[in-house]
Amino acid sequence: MDHTEQRKKLRVALAGSKCVSATSVFDPLSARVAEAVGFEIGMLSGSLASITTLAAPDLNVLTLTEYADQIRRIMRVSGLSLFIDADNGYGNALNVMRTVQEVEHAGVSALSIEDMVLPRSFGQAEGEQRLVSIEEAVGKLRAAVAGRSDPSLVIAARTSALVVEGVDGAVARAKAYSMAGVDAIYLATNVAGVNVYSRPDILEQFKAVNAAAKLPLMLNAGRSLLKREDLTACGVRIMAQGLQPVAASVKALRETYMHLFSGGAPADLKSKIASPQEMEQLVNADSYKQWLHEYMR
Amino acid sequence: MDHTEQRKKLRVALAGSKCVSATSVFDPLSARVAEAVGFEIGMLSGSLASITTLAAPDLNVLTLTEYADQIRRIMRVSGLSLFIDADNGYGNALNVMRTVQEVEHAGVSALSIEDMVLPRSFGQAEGEQRLVSIEEAVGKLRAAVAGRSDPSLVIAARTSALVVEGVDGAVARAKAYSMAGVDAIYLATNVAGVNVYSRPDILEQFKAVNAAAKLPLMLNAGRSLLKREDLTACGVRIMAQGLQPVAASVKALRETYMHLFSGGAPADLKSKIASPQEMEQLVNADSYKQWLHEYMR
Amino acid sequence: MDHTEQRKKLRVALAGSKCVSATSVFDPLSARVAEAVGFEIGMLSGSLASITTLAAPDLNVLTLTEYADQIRRIMRVSGLSLFIDADNGYGNALNVMRTVQEVEHAGVSALSIEDMVLPRSFGQAEGEQRLVSIEEAVGKLRAAVAGRSDPSLVIAARTSALVVEGVDGAVARAKAYSMAGVDAIYLATNVAGVNVYSRPDILEQFKAVNAAAKLPLMLNAGRSLLKREDLTACGVRIMAQGLQPVAASVKALRETYMHLFSGGAPADLKSKIASPQEMEQLVNADSYKQWLHEYMR
Amino acid sequence: MDHTEQRKKLRVALAGSKCVSATSVFDPLSARVAEAVGFEIGMLSGSLASITTLAAPDLNVLTLTEYADQIRRIMRVSGLSLFIDADNGYGNALNVMRTVQEVEHAGVSALSIEDMVLPRSFGQAEGEQRLVSIEEAVGKLRAAVAGRSDPSLVIAARTSALVVEGVDGAVARAKAYSMAGVDAIYLATNVAGVNVYSRPDILEQFKAVNAAAKLPLMLNAGRSLLKREDLTACGVRIMAQGLQPVAASVKALRETYMHLFSGGAPADLKSKIASPQEMEQLVNADSYKQWLHEYMR
Repeated sequence: MDHTEQRKKLRVALAGSKCVSATSVFDPLSARVAEAVGFEIGMLSGSLASITTLAAPDLNVLTLTEYADQIRRIMRVSGLSLFIDADNGYGNALNVMRTVQEVEHAGVSALSIEDMVLPRSFGQAEGEQRLVSIEEAVGKLRAAVAGRSDPSLVIAARTSALVVEGVDGAVARAKAYSMAGVDAIYLATNVAGVNVYSRPDILEQFKAVNAAAKLPLMLNAGRSLLKREDLTACGVRIMAQGLQPVAASVKALRETYMHLFSGGAPADLKSKIASPQEMEQLVNADSYKQWLHEYMR
Repeated sequence: MDHTEQRKKLRVALAGSKCVSATSVFDPLSARVAEAVGFEIGMLSGSLASITTLAAPDLNVLTLTEYADQIRRIMRVSGLSLFIDADNGYGNALNVMRTVQEVEHAGVSALSIEDMVLPRSFGQAEGEQRLVSIEEAVGKLRAAVAGRSDPSLVIAARTSALVVEGVDGAVARAKAYSMAGVDAIYLATNVAGVNVYSRPDILEQFKAVNAAAKLPLMLNAGRSLLKREDLTACGVRIMAQGLQPVAASVKALRETYMHLFSGGAPADLKSKIASPQEMEQLVNADSYKQWLHEYMR
Repeated sequence: MDHTEQRKKLRVALAGSKCVSATSVFDPLSARVAEAVGFEIGMLSGSLASITTLAAPDLNVLTLTEYADQIRRIMRVSGLSLFIDADNGYGNALNVMRTVQEVEHAGVSALSIEDMVLPRSFGQAEGEQRLVSIEEAVGKLRAAVAGRSDPSLVIAARTSALVVEGVDGAVARAKAYSMAGVDAIYLATNVAGVNVYSRPDILEQFKAVNAAAKLPLMLNAGRSLLKREDLTACGVRIMAQGLQPVAASVKALRETYMHLFSGGAPADLKSKIASPQEMEQLVNADSYKQWLHEYMR
Repeated sequence: MDHTEQRKKLRVALAGSKCVSATSVFDPLSARVAEAVGFEIGMLSGSLASITTLAAPDLNVLTLTEYADQIRRIMRVSGLSLFIDADNGYGNALNVMRTVQEVEHAGVSALSIEDMVLPRSFGQAEGEQRLVSIEEAVGKLRAAVAGRSDPSLVIAARTSALVVEGVDGAVARAKAYSMAGVDAIYLATNVAGVNVYSRPDILEQFKAVNAAAKLPLMLNAGRSLLKREDLTACGVRIMAQGLQPVAASVKALRETYMHLFSGGAPADLKSKIASPQEMEQLVNADSYKQWLHEYMR
């Protein structure tokens, strides 16, 4: 539970020579399960946080405070390093500073600030995407770096430039963002239906960005069919997995509720639910027993 | 989303002639799934709230504010009537009043206040259970009733007397609690390893309590093998189901994380996860699209 | 504490023939004092909420959730009708809907949504102010009206058009906003150093806006030297007072701390502090004593 | 804003040879003013937190979460070391552990856990006070020490023994509490109308406790007429001042609201309110201007 330690572990991953998966987690239990299975990095995107805490789609209606609350719930009990995508910092550079302060306090290990105009503008067409100017983005990233208290907190620049502007734009932005003092570049690979993984020279594009920024890259796995070692060679160090875990949870919930609603016996669910022992482990029951023993008799 | 409406629906169930199941829900998504499947009443016990929001066991370490926050998250988006067990009201009668005010504000449909001494006392043996005096419990229940703003909010007295004191104690308490103005009696059936369902005359005992209180009963299903119609005949109107849903979610999460951790392809999970369409439905995507259409162009 | 009742009282004031003062309140105690003195409407501007809950200037760094939390603290114990200025709704029309839902839930009686571009844009000059288009503003106001659950909640359109665009702009916007279904027009009178009260024909301008909108007006008192009856004749129904209360509190705090820091006797402060009786009244001590008496013996 | 630094400063005061005043602060602005005046330690008692965040009397209706939220608001912007009295830790030893974790996370510098039975028990007479057993209190204090993450966080044992049990009880408890690993003894001097300052040999009693515990003492100033140097000689290192600041704020608010309510001109308040310059200083306006300059153009 030492947040600095968790941040340093993430820095080790970024500085290493492998491409590590960050799996999506969304509440204390999912984080505990992911950790028990062996993951070292969790990812709570703004999208996933909206879905799970508000039952709302990825349309930027979650507030910074609500996001930080959920991060705090997770980091109170999780040993994972946690990566979040803090959208565009919820406003201008001053809002970015508050964002960094609030999510740092909540215990996050890494956050990204992105260069897309958010939330959706009045009159903006469905597929249309706009980026803020390089100057504005750099100002925000510099504000993010200045807003950090714990120097081990990782700050990444997330850019949609590869999708929206192409490789030249991405290279220019990555270079500028790098000079703002960030620790990594998080490349959006899929924006409003445009998916860069289908480009034949995508590995070259990743390489170009990596070379320009001289910083480790982070990507969303999306529907990438690329080989892990090829991505590693492009400087990709963190690969964020998708929303399968929450979708698996939803499917299991639906089947369980349907069984119970149709009058099925709870006992018949035995093979489909975690055992009492597993549940006890997840809630750290042994430590509580130990504390009762130590302090209450 | 009209909380008074949800409370009135619960009152209809209590006043009816059937025994309705309340299924356990713990966050916005689980509540949405339960509702989609057909349930009308959700149950968020203190135990379940501890497990899911703190990853902590059922040892009364969750605060009233944390509980109310989670209720609010659920009731912001759920059409279910929600029943919660508010432990002993987190202190004395003044704390009970605040408890009622806070959870009512959070949108709950029904809450119970129980007569067990909580949290565990210093030196209390594992199996030992103590109830507060009838007078103290009645004071707390009267405070609960007085603390309610919306008269449609259901207040139940939860008693462990049947387990701890036997049927005579339960009858005496049910009668006294009923006169405090509560709307239902919630009978604990399993306390510290003692399970009343194994008693041969348990139906008679339920009947005696129901007759004494002249109020509908609520029970936890536990491992009851009793027939629903027999329980209905004893005045049982709500049967709270167990923690299978969260345990099913945990199992699904573990399998998903294991698959991903061992390098399995996300695509292979397709049959085990909710479809994008189902996820969209759960987050009310159509309404959001409609609002974008209506107000942003 | 019935929020609908408080909203209806505010509607009575808006529908009346007088111009009523809304005094600034910022926490439970200030609201209690204002009510004890005789005020019926409190005003918690975003600016005042930033100052008092974050010790931050009026630069839009307060989140919606933080604002709603402070409103809730006040409305839990205050009988005042509370007016808030919810900035621009913290984003686009979807954010406006959430804003209305959250502050309505927190108990507010009235809120305004404004047409200024917020927060400050990158590169925006100090004195420069931009308004969103009429179409965008109307979309947001329609979303606000649609987001309301309690029809008694007052929704006002706040416009800086009189300052930024002049009377013609203000008339055009007031007319359009009125058709969006809002209940009042809140005219900004002082934006970035430009103060409309110095205009010789300002009463005519107010009258023109009022006639166009056919809605009651709300103003900030600012340094207006206009007579109350003249404003009333222009349709002004609510006049928001300034930040004197919090500034008076700060001065009293400084003098008290200085006295104590320099070793002065606490007893010497007697004439400068509220009496124990007044403090007891503010915290509703008599009711608590009554509850202790009723429910705890 | 480095909480460890603030804790270490408090430890320096405890280890020193002077008796330092801790002045009561209750929100971000009061903390900022106290710091500007020269205070180094602030005190937010549970009582003061109840009054200011709930407008409720000192009857233990504030939740741990609400208390921690207010601490966080203060410590986000204050350079003071902050001392809080965390009542009895809101339950048993497990609740004490959570209390320590939550208030430590919120940024507090020191907290005390007390040995009084709280909240008031059913049937408890007005003047009656009960302490938990030494064993139970020691268990809670050991749990508090174990619950701490930052070793610089100060944990004090607060005891009402001097009032309730006399000097022998206080000595015995102080000795036992000291062995539990706490950093200071906070002696209650006034409980339910009994005030130890009127005892002729009170200095001897303080000395005896200090000698038994071999730990620095903390006291509430109350209506003590004792000389500071005499208290210092008894090992008293921190003297908590009373509620004069909030009472001064209330008086100033009342006078201001009365002036405004009776139609007085705001301008006439000039000599009674903080200047715009002072308000700007309190909200750190210069830093914000600097950030706008640095990151937004």
